Amino acid sequence: MNTSIGVGVLGAGTVGGTLISRLVDDREAIATKTGLELCVKRVAVRDLAKERDFTVDDGVLTDDLLSVVNDPEIDLIVELMGGRDLAGDLVLAALEAGKPVVTANKELVASRGPELIAAAERTGVPFLFEAAVGGGIPIIRPLSETLAGEPIERVLGIVNGTTNFILTRMAEDGADYADVLAEAQELGYAEPDPTADVSGADAAAKAAILASLAFGTWVGLDDVYHEGIEDLSPIDLVFAADFGYSVKLIGIAERIMGGVSARVHPVMIPVDHPLASIRGATNAIFIQGPSVGELLFAGPGAGGAPTATAVLGDVIDAARETLAGAQVAPKIRFSPGELVPFGDVATKWYLRIEVDDQPGVLAQVAGAFGSAGVSIKSVWQEGEGDEALLLIVTHRAREADQQEALRHLEEIDTVRSVAAVIRVESEEA
Amino acid sequence: MNTSIGVGVLGAGTVGGTLISRLVDDREAIATKTGLELCVKRVAVRDLAKERDFTVDDGVLTDDLLSVVNDPEIDLIVELMGGRDLAGDLVLAALEAGKPVVTANKELVASRGPELIAAAERTGVPFLFEAAVGGGIPIIRPLSETLAGEPIERVLGIVNGTTNFILTRMAEDGADYADVLAEAQELGYAEPDPTADVSGADAAAKAAILASLAFGTWVGLDDVYHEGIEDLSPIDLVFAADFGYSVKLIGIAERIMGGVSARVHPVMIPVDHPLASIRGATNAIFIQGPSVGELLFAGPGAGGAPTATAVLGDVIDAARETLAGAQVAPKIRFSPGELVPFGDVATKWYLRIEVDDQPGVLAQVAGAFGSAGVSIKSVWQEGEGDEALLLIVTHRAREADQQEALRHLEEIDTVRSVAAVIRVESEEA
Repeated sequence: MNTSIGVGVLGAGTVGGTLISRLVDDREAIATKTGLELCVKRVAVRDLAKERDFTVDDGVLTDDLLSVVNDPEIDLIVELMGGRDLAGDLVLAALEAGKPVVTANKELVASRGPELIAAAERTGVPFLFEAAVGGGIPIIRPLSETLAGEPIERVLGIVNGTTNFILTRMAEDGADYADVLAEAQELGYAEPDPTADVSGADAAAKAAILASLAFGTWVGLDDVYHEGIEDLSPIDLVFAADFGYSVKLIGIAERIMGGVSARVHPVMIPVDHPLASIRGATNAIFIQGPSVGELLFAGPGAGGAPTATAVLGDVIDAARETLAGAQVAPKIRFSPGELVPFGDVATKWYLRIEVDDQPGVLAQVAGAFGSAGVSIKSVWQEGEGDEALLLIVTHRAREADQQEALRHLEEIDTVRSVAAVIRVESEEA
Repeated sequence: MNTSIGVGVLGAGTVGGTLISRLVDDREAIATKTGLELCVKRVAVRDLAKERDFTVDDGVLTDDLLSVVNDPEIDLIVELMGGRDLAGDLVLAALEAGKPVVTANKELVASRGPELIAAAERTGVPFLFEAAVGGGIPIIRPLSETLAGEPIERVLGIVNGTTNFILTRMAEDGADYADVLAEAQELGYAEPDPTADVSGADAAAKAAILASLAFGTWVGLDDVYHEGIEDLSPIDLVFAADFGYSVKLIGIAERIMGGVSARVHPVMIPVDHPLASIRGATNAIFIQGPSVGELLFAGPGAGGAPTATAVLGDVIDAARETLAGAQVAPKIRFSPGELVPFGDVATKWYLRIEVDDQPGVLAQVAGAFGSAGVSIKSVWQEGEGDEALLLIVTHRAREADQQEALRHLEEIDTVRSVAAVIRVESEEA
């Protein structure tokens, strides 16, 4: 029986380089454990002259992407180049040619998932992307296979390690956002251009994938509202702790109001929630369902080695299927469903408001909420000379109504500034 | 395209009953989400007259087990009857007849796994047992698929909810083992005959399965040393907390000394270890690997609903494969490996020793350890009248040497009793 699989890799950055090293160095160990001979036949890179941490035979490196996809000796494509257009076209070409594809590209899956999944279904080959969410944490298979029969209600995920590292340092050391970001960049936890991480865009792509798999309704990247951590101040993390909350950047996928909602924003979450204690660059995904109850998956969410482990698991799985010569049964199926616009989602808000310290201000502020139909749960007031600080937590109300209250607030003369707004997740109304 | 699958269920206890209810009640929802028509054709029960929580058509219930396996309208068998002999023979017959089998029977998998996996491989059908470990927590697929390329070093699991419930109550309320056991029985967290849980036997079957999948070397039920929680006293849980440890019943699967070790016993684990904070009947599995780092999976480890979710996920997966008409690629492969006898495993011990309060006793006690080649890490002594209490923590030493030290201790006249022995897991030597 033939047990050899020719592997072509598109992109040899951090994850790609680590994967290739392991395919080459652990070739025998993998063969012993799995019975598969995984042979790296070609690796497409942008710069042939650049020095690499891995060693491959002469002629394996190429800068011709399409030649890898078209090589008849290559049975399986691993896409680790990133981006959605070129990468997506190459993945599509491979799937249409009947070659299984493994990718870690969350942006690609979140933007072109249905098209690629449909192509894989037509030719009956695996299209696997375990590494696209949560790095080394197994989450795609559990969601799409183990929990296939569970009407999942809610998925909450800390799915971006950079922002969780920054928030942990801000909360524990009272450090400013800008200082911690600079530190994270020095440590390699944040990119030189950190926008995708700190803006919530990276987490939004992952939330889109989690929502799509959890609910079986396609949620695209552009369907996910996202808001980042750039405007958070350490003082609000302190107030949050006083109130019994941690502040985390969380991807939320929920079945609500007969539809599906997916969004990413900073969240005040009760300190006894399992996600509240996830520190540093660790990722964690929390799943709720009526039968299965509450599940937590935690581990390293990024980094070359854990992500390469997830990619390698997919490569082994796809290679097994390919050698079995099977028409692969599609594991993912989308049916139509309604997306709930973010403005209709009911949330609770925490607000820090700077006001003139004079009689009647609180009544005016309360009126702003009242006229928007938002009711206030608690107010905490502190005077400081001629200025006072109001910390307000509202009851649950439509996001659009909360935004209306915010506009009313900003029109009040005695309101100097709405200095912070953070949404609150808790069981209570 | 035919999308209908005839399902036969062997056993309709708590898990079986819940599964059947969901297959019947959620039939349309499952069809929408997965594209599969899952039809419960026959259910084998011991007592046809017993009232059931689920409703099936006339003629579906039977007390003839073999008729379910042999029914040509049944494409897929779910085994939930328990036990290893009869259940195993029926599962084997189904697999040999080319019918996929899903089971939650940990004892069966841990005792006859290789035989059944080989039979499934011969006929190319799925043999799935996600529910056998960790109830609703997805762990079998992550271990055998996502982490297939990771040379896993260590798996630590709280895999028995009954004992974790009892230990949590003992630690938090200082309650006696016997009292908490009685309470757990009243609450339905413990069986009327709790032996399998409290003796560690249930956890041993799960540890055998985890070790086999993690290391790709078959570890049978009888290869797992196990020790239960029956002899633990609340006072040792208090001392453990003073020293910075929690006491948990843990299944340990490790690659050590060029081989594989699997064992279950009470463990003092540092309070900052992720498993230390797992409370009540929750299960959790902690995995360490050189690339993936540390992963934690937590959730409800037992109960009809979560376990039925895991079984249903397997049923859907097996049904998809069956409809794809594919020769299923085997996901699990065992290669030879050495099992390290428990006596050769290096462990640290905590001991509570009652001695006469007189000069020279400590020297005698220290001598008992020294003559067995075990070195002492710390001693804490407390006098109480003419009796003294010694709390000793040793450095890591071979289990057999620790046992020899124990025999020497028990021969010393001034040692009244070795009142407690608990093994300690920590990073230090």
